[in-house]
Amino acid sequence: MKCASDIEVRDVEEMYINIDPIQAGGRLTADAMKAVIAYADGYSVCDNCRKPFRLDYIQKPPIAQFHADLARWLNMDTARVVPGARRGFQAVASSLVERGDPVILTSLAHYTEYLAIEEAGGVPREIPKDGSNRITADAAAERIEAVIREFSRTPPLLFLDHVDYQYGNVHDVAGIIKVAHQYDIPVLVNGAYTVGIMPVDGKALGADFLVGSGHKSMAAPAPSGVLATVEEYAGKVFRTTEARGDLTGRTFGIKEVEMMGCTLMGVTVVGMMASFPHVQERVKGWETEVAHSQAVVDALLSIEGTKVLSEYPRRHTLTRVDTRESFDRVAQQHKKKGYFLSNDLKKRGVIGVIPGSTRVWKFNTFGLTENQIRHLSEAFVEIARDNGLNCL
Amino acid sequence: MKCASDIEVRDVEEMYINIDPIQAGGRLTADAMKAVIAYADGYSVCDNCRKPFRLDYIQKPPIAQFHADLARWLNMDTARVVPGARRGFQAVASSLVERGDPVILTSLAHYTEYLAIEEAGGVPREIPKDGSNRITADAAAERIEAVIREFSRTPPLLFLDHVDYQYGNVHDVAGIIKVAHQYDIPVLVNGAYTVGIMPVDGKALGADFLVGSGHKSMAAPAPSGVLATVEEYAGKVFRTTEARGDLTGRTFGIKEVEMMGCTLMGVTVVGMMASFPHVQERVKGWETEVAHSQAVVDALLSIEGTKVLSEYPRRHTLTRVDTRESFDRVAQQHKKKGYFLSNDLKKRGVIGVIPGSTRVWKFNTFGLTENQIRHLSEAFVEIARDNGLNCL
Repeated sequence: MKCASDIEVRDVEEMYINIDPIQAGGRLTADAMKAVIAYADGYSVCDNCRKPFRLDYIQKPPIAQFHADLARWLNMDTARVVPGARRGFQAVASSLVERGDPVILTSLAHYTEYLAIEEAGGVPREIPKDGSNRITADAAAERIEAVIREFSRTPPLLFLDHVDYQYGNVHDVAGIIKVAHQYDIPVLVNGAYTVGIMPVDGKALGADFLVGSGHKSMAAPAPSGVLATVEEYAGKVFRTTEARGDLTGRTFGIKEVEMMGCTLMGVTVVGMMASFPHVQERVKGWETEVAHSQAVVDALLSIEGTKVLSEYPRRHTLTRVDTRESFDRVAQQHKKKGYFLSNDLKKRGVIGVIPGSTRVWKFNTFGLTENQIRHLSEAFVEIARDNGLNCL
Repeated sequence: MKCASDIEVRDVEEMYINIDPIQAGGRLTADAMKAVIAYADGYSVCDNCRKPFRLDYIQKPPIAQFHADLARWLNMDTARVVPGARRGFQAVASSLVERGDPVILTSLAHYTEYLAIEEAGGVPREIPKDGSNRITADAAAERIEAVIREFSRTPPLLFLDHVDYQYGNVHDVAGIIKVAHQYDIPVLVNGAYTVGIMPVDGKALGADFLVGSGHKSMAAPAPSGVLATVEEYAGKVFRTTEARGDLTGRTFGIKEVEMMGCTLMGVTVVGMMASFPHVQERVKGWETEVAHSQAVVDALLSIEGTKVLSEYPRRHTLTRVDTRESFDRVAQQHKKKGYFLSNDLKKRGVIGVIPGSTRVWKFNTFGLTENQIRHLSEAFVEIARDNGLNCL
């Protein structure tokens, strides 16, 4: 069925249990869907834009209030909506990093952090992970020392993934930030996998910048996200324009350079806003989400040969597993090769594992119901049994 | 009526004739609305993202084809979708402009061009407008010469608004670009008010970069837009990352630095795609749109004291008028002051003039039907007559 010319209707979320690693936290809430329909037109939130003509000052819809609420909820001083977490990284790197500066990130960092550093002319330096795929404060301290020796100056910024996208491991953010602050290095916490799905307290972590993703974890349309800062850096990253027309003398009020003026002028910001009360509520159920994740992981571990590469027990809903000694053994004999797994899952109403993957892969159980978790766990075990794998 | 918590349902486009200057070209088509509903979830277009894992390579929905079609339609060599035209300006300025470089733009340039220059560390230098609020090739030549003398080097970039946002005047883009190219200055054409509403041929204009806005003129949700380039500059602006993890050796494939990887991963790109066939069709009706605009302007001019500040006859649907000697005279006596005009328009089903404005203001007739144009023209004249202004 087509929804327009050659675009097929997307029914993944209606028809399947979707365990795709990146999509789980970005499914819209019903309220967001209603808001999307009401505000789908281009500049839909600009009907009542009045002086000083900036998105975060608009009262109706209550975008100004939303910005204040977002900052308070994250326990940060200021917040702006941005077109994706990556545009938050870009704004901060562009403001703090000069050409040739070393910038620290971790060996599990998302690629967009490397891009933000590259665009600002910085030089990435990684904190190594330990044997359990965790970033520790000790490793951070050691690397900071080494980088200062190498460059004879202090890195102007450190990127830190609260939960990394590779393993879904929860890192010692507070401990690492404490170390960084001893060297006066401000820290940007990438909360793309945390803000909107689990409780995050920016001040408790010590974050100088806290970035979240609307489409990844705040039940919002893409591209959307939030960049929050402490007061100390707000003036720098959200600096207003000093540009002046040399002939006309034109100036541009309080438009913010790194935001490029307004950012999300329609469906994206309204989607975030409509989901926000639900997002604030759902993070309170994080323990249940983790228990669900653990249940599915344990079902997978009951299949002989299966390993979990993420930390165990699980503390997040995104998990990386190694099934080279289980499902991949089946794949080597199966007439459908590696596709048997995604096929068999799909027959059972489960989607989101990359077709063909039977070696090392990821899945995310966020947002599934108790029943769906049970069904998913049983599906994995049944597929294993049906294909001759031993299960405990 | 609320659509979610404290967000009121937006019904401006359903209930009124909307002549807001910036919203006209961004109203969704029916197909875009259907696509928005089907693809509203966060990372909705990523279901079938396969190697090399980049938005513009996705086959289903046909995003790869859309990119090729966009470039061909604009008669440019390559195209990428971006989160708003401004993010296209930013990408180009960031790639071409070094700190301290002079960058030329016009005295009618949109503020986001100044911001893009500022963020890149450039120094804006304006081409003056002439007495009819037009930018001419002669003025451009003169200013380029002066800037080269001032800085002892050639500006790396010139921004040029195809149609400016202040007057809706159509400038001599081809003539100005011809001049700029004599000095080897590449030109970015800002087509925020042209791409998607009138025919635009990048090669015929001579544009090195052609930028359009999805939410302003391509019937798409915000933030969205297109950045198209000629082959010569594609490799520079769409350069792929050279970042490498210093410990891990990680590299990041063909992710593009200025795009920050993927740009519009959901409803925004699908909205653009669903509207695209209609947008391609509607630009063919541009002459009718201009005739409509002219009819409303002539109705306004029939009201004694009213002046049109935009070029006349009209060549665009965005118009700036001066009613200080007509509606503003009424305002000075009226118990509702300047609000009488927007109030009286609203009573007649017309919205989009900033409440209180009776001096210098703008409106846009794009997309209105023949009947709506007649109604709008009559509304202005009736309001004038009802308030004692002479009409021809």
